[in-house]
Amino acid sequence: MTHYKIQFLPHHKSIEVPEGQSIIRAALEAGVHINASCGGEGVCGKCRVIIEEGKVSDGITEKLRPEDIEKGYRLACQSTVTENLVVRVPVESAIDASVLNMQSTPRRTARIQQMDLNDLKQQNLFIPPVEKKYLELPEPTAEDHLPDVTRLVSFLKLTHDEHRLVVSLPVIRKIPDLLRQQGFKITATLERPVLKGRKTNIINIQPGDTTDKNFAVAIDIGTTTVYGQLINLVTGEILAEQGDFNAQISYGEDVISRIVYAEKNDGLEKLHQVIIQTINKLINFLVRKSGVDKEDISNVTLAGNTTMTQLFLKVNPRYIRRSPYVPASTIYPPIKAIDLGFDLNQHASALVYPAVSSYVGGDIVAGVMGSGMYLTEKVTLFLDIGTNAEIVIGNRDWLACAACSAGPAFEGGGIEFGMRATKGAIEDFSIDPETLEPMNLCIGNVRPKGVCGSGLIIMVATLFEMGIINNLGKFERDLDTPRIRERNGIYEYVLAWKDETQIDRDIALSEIDIENLIRAKGAIYSGCMTLIEEVGMSIQDIEQVILAGGFGSYVDLEKAMVIGLLPELDPEKIIYIGNGSLMGAKMSALSNHIRLHVSEVIKKMTNFELSETPSYMDQYIAALFLPHTDLEKFPKLQKRLKDRKLILSQKK
Amino acid sequence: MTHYKIQFLPHHKSIEVPEGQSIIRAALEAGVHINASCGGEGVCGKCRVIIEEGKVSDGITEKLRPEDIEKGYRLACQSTVTENLVVRVPVESAIDASVLNMQSTPRRTARIQQMDLNDLKQQNLFIPPVEKKYLELPEPTAEDHLPDVTRLVSFLKLTHDEHRLVVSLPVIRKIPDLLRQQGFKITATLERPVLKGRKTNIINIQPGDTTDKNFAVAIDIGTTTVYGQLINLVTGEILAEQGDFNAQISYGEDVISRIVYAEKNDGLEKLHQVIIQTINKLINFLVRKSGVDKEDISNVTLAGNTTMTQLFLKVNPRYIRRSPYVPASTIYPPIKAIDLGFDLNQHASALVYPAVSSYVGGDIVAGVMGSGMYLTEKVTLFLDIGTNAEIVIGNRDWLACAACSAGPAFEGGGIEFGMRATKGAIEDFSIDPETLEPMNLCIGNVRPKGVCGSGLIIMVATLFEMGIINNLGKFERDLDTPRIRERNGIYEYVLAWKDETQIDRDIALSEIDIENLIRAKGAIYSGCMTLIEEVGMSIQDIEQVILAGGFGSYVDLEKAMVIGLLPELDPEKIIYIGNGSLMGAKMSALSNHIRLHVSEVIKKMTNFELSETPSYMDQYIAALFLPHTDLEKFPKLQKRLKDRKLILSQKK
Repeated sequence: MTHYKIQFLPHHKSIEVPEGQSIIRAALEAGVHINASCGGEGVCGKCRVIIEEGKVSDGITEKLRPEDIEKGYRLACQSTVTENLVVRVPVESAIDASVLNMQSTPRRTARIQQMDLNDLKQQNLFIPPVEKKYLELPEPTAEDHLPDVTRLVSFLKLTHDEHRLVVSLPVIRKIPDLLRQQGFKITATLERPVLKGRKTNIINIQPGDTTDKNFAVAIDIGTTTVYGQLINLVTGEILAEQGDFNAQISYGEDVISRIVYAEKNDGLEKLHQVIIQTINKLINFLVRKSGVDKEDISNVTLAGNTTMTQLFLKVNPRYIRRSPYVPASTIYPPIKAIDLGFDLNQHASALVYPAVSSYVGGDIVAGVMGSGMYLTEKVTLFLDIGTNAEIVIGNRDWLACAACSAGPAFEGGGIEFGMRATKGAIEDFSIDPETLEPMNLCIGNVRPKGVCGSGLIIMVATLFEMGIINNLGKFERDLDTPRIRERNGIYEYVLAWKDETQIDRDIALSEIDIENLIRAKGAIYSGCMTLIEEVGMSIQDIEQVILAGGFGSYVDLEKAMVIGLLPELDPEKIIYIGNGSLMGAKMSALSNHIRLHVSEVIKKMTNFELSETPSYMDQYIAALFLPHTDLEKFPKLQKRLKDRKLILSQKK
Repeated sequence: MTHYKIQFLPHHKSIEVPEGQSIIRAALEAGVHINASCGGEGVCGKCRVIIEEGKVSDGITEKLRPEDIEKGYRLACQSTVTENLVVRVPVESAIDASVLNMQSTPRRTARIQQMDLNDLKQQNLFIPPVEKKYLELPEPTAEDHLPDVTRLVSFLKLTHDEHRLVVSLPVIRKIPDLLRQQGFKITATLERPVLKGRKTNIINIQPGDTTDKNFAVAIDIGTTTVYGQLINLVTGEILAEQGDFNAQISYGEDVISRIVYAEKNDGLEKLHQVIIQTINKLINFLVRKSGVDKEDISNVTLAGNTTMTQLFLKVNPRYIRRSPYVPASTIYPPIKAIDLGFDLNQHASALVYPAVSSYVGGDIVAGVMGSGMYLTEKVTLFLDIGTNAEIVIGNRDWLACAACSAGPAFEGGGIEFGMRATKGAIEDFSIDPETLEPMNLCIGNVRPKGVCGSGLIIMVATLFEMGIINNLGKFERDLDTPRIRERNGIYEYVLAWKDETQIDRDIALSEIDIENLIRAKGAIYSGCMTLIEEVGMSIQDIEQVILAGGFGSYVDLEKAMVIGLLPELDPEKIIYIGNGSLMGAKMSALSNHIRLHVSEVIKKMTNFELSETPSYMDQYIAALFLPHTDLEKFPKLQKRLKDRKLILSQKK
């Protein structure tokens, strides 16, 4: 895609953006504030800019007077980039350039690490656990009348050096007729053992050569969403991918309410059935979309947290939520897919990622395996942030892990106008340091309905760095703006006025919301710090951070460090792997190395129960500040705050 | 049971028989002929004897005149023994004692070898593949919060030295609630691996201590009859035993007609279903009879010939009957009993005996294992006689086997008045050397309906040794008796006249019947001899003969040697194990040694295809005589025949 350079004046900030980007998003990325309350829908008419050089597409609405249009005025949220531009942001008050540049750092999300198939191949890790072999067997004669199965097994031994083979009953049932269908020319599907020293299973045979059709399904069973991928095991490509809500959501939003439901009569059976239905729906969608034949799907790999795994396997999760929080099992044998009720061929087997404990589940283990953390020399901090945050630290030699309950703030829960990251959620934000007018950008460029987790972090970080809230998250009481007000005794900042929203109410961020966010980020930060200390390390020893989970992709790293959600680190060290659970499930379908090593890895993963780790509470209390009670731990922020103070004092 | 001595005059032969035995059976056992046409029902009135000393119970009927009763006359078939007796057989013509004593040798069936549990224990072979362990697990605490499954596995490791354990999904499903039902006191059911190096599977858990309830089922799937036993794995006892017709019999009497039926649409499915129904009926009967709880049955071991095994497993047997006679498989993985449709608990597993070839099946392998042949040093000839006869020769170091088609003569097939060994079948026979009058004894002491296999052997042997038929099986043409006659150009001996039978027809034995028997016995004898020669041995090298199959228990060994069905051997060397297939299935339930070694044993069993062994046809043709073209091979018989000739010549 063609990129164009946009220069913003009077800030003298430049940024390269792809063709079709809106001016307002370009400004946000460049760290340039433009007033905008309506989320990018074009209704507030506040985001007026002057196109000084170049031409934009669109951007002309009835909100602009004809003479202004003549002068080059456009609405930033409606204008899209088609060439290099110079854009002037009309600054209503005379703020000098230094104040303008006190604006936030440019948006910085984590580098995305994609699975690299070539890497996998070079490391000899591209070993699909299910392989197909095309065989032209000799036909039996009076001299050579081996039983059909023995003929197959001996031939594989002789010509393919395949030893320790077992043959399942369905293959024995098929073999007499199938061998004779195309003159003893067949394709055998071999499944490698999950445990070392066990046997390779011949799970299917097909007439003729079908070696080019070998597929697997990877499933991430999330509490909210279930994702599936259909993978071509010959090329390593993903042929289709799909997500759907976990149908269990009707029986409870979070893990605990699901467990409570499962304790009712038939509750477990019901939750088991609906998740199987969700998965079957996904599988059938993937099959339709990719056009593969179900008979060529031989394997399903699944990963989920401990509760999701137990519900999916119909194992009572009752004791997961009762002290001392004991799961039924952390490791599961391979299971025939049809025995679980999967709508797949009878030879397909299902493998479920093992867990470490009740709260560090198979989804996290999948992330550790799929991201390659279990193979790296680098000391790595792995972080999966959701309602619960799971933390793993270590490398290929040692691993430690812990889970902490962050609460639902990052998913918009417990926040008055919080919402999930869907259309209408304010996902990006900036504030005019003089007028305190906001710049709201919404998902879908529509009028705001609420605030999502990543937007919340940006808001709180921005408000704090601008000095609008203090390190306790309380608003400065003497600021002169109608946007900061007291309602029912609680201070709040109005993000959007009633008539600029979709919900016919003012959308505001209150001190209670901020407090909730601080508690959430404090739990995670202190969890990381406790674990790092427990293994005798400090933050400087961390060579790499892996962020997993849907949340991680949108988090502005710098802002996350400003609020003290993440320790202050070189953003270059931070990579984002997306859905670690799905990645692990996929990688396990592509590499038997993972399947063989996962049981060692979980044995290596020392689990820390933070509630029983004495230092955790101290760490937590120290983290209930922005960014922390000890600002020295955030030296870059400390310097920026100091510089800002200096500029402001010079200005006075 | 009390035994009494019966002395027969004028023969001066004595025998001990149990209380309640009939005089006529005692006479037959002693080798004393008493005319009797009606099979022991008491209607012909011919079997009159005089009780000279002692008293019998019953024996008085309207067939005897009052004055004869006064003299001590009784009907031998109606009189039962209650004390020591001297019994005179009224000899109607004046035959001297030497002729009387030319009568057959006493009945001699093979010594029955029962499984000896103590032997098994002494040899350390009483190792049931399924064991129960009672465990008092420590309850989890904040310090010890292992997952439930890990708790169980670790405890077994620590306190019972059990390693390499795997846990199946149904156990994982049960464990959370079950552990907490009786304060972490449970009984775990452990199944040992069938293959060396594989893992022990925890297949079930129960609350409290149930270690005294551990059962298995053994099933022999015969073409005609299915037998089942319910075995107590704690004591080794058989708690219940039952046989039933294989319901497949409605779809064809023998293996070949079943295969033909299986080739029809849904034929295989139908045959599979009905055998599963037969087995389920048996299992439910055994469970009811023994009063055990199905949850305590953890294992089913099955054995059958290759076709029965394939039909039972729903594997198309089509190619078993087509050159080059290739079975689908000879070895089968363990299968969950419920996956086969068995009416058992979900944790029970089914193990099917492996086969050697299309015609040396799992029933024979079971016999080799169950009889201990695979462990003995003695060179053993194992013989299972039915429609097909299977022959195994060898010992613990080597084994060779072959199958030959004997035809159905031994089961009464192909014989005009042949029938299975059921009520009304003449099972024993003797002939008066002077009058040529028969002595027929029927199963159930009823009037005859026909002749069963064991009766047939006795008849032909007796007729031959008495000189009534020659070594080609042809009747001497000059004998003066209405019982030998020509009908439709074929000579025959009338065993029972129309009014003495149940079928309102004369029952006779024809030269065609004898020819069929000679072909059947010739096939078996030549099979044995060919196999013995192929392994470079002679009959003298055989240290032990094991007879298996329903047939073997009734076969009079001496008579079988007279007709040349068996080679002439010391009868002491011959043991009868009854149903070898069932014995093998049972032994496999009692001793994992068998399960672990069976795959080596079948690899050791060199299979000879007699049809492709050039010497077989020569051997067969030489065996189409009574007893053989070369009488020298039967020296004892040769001497008896010579003695007889001498006596007869002296008499003249």
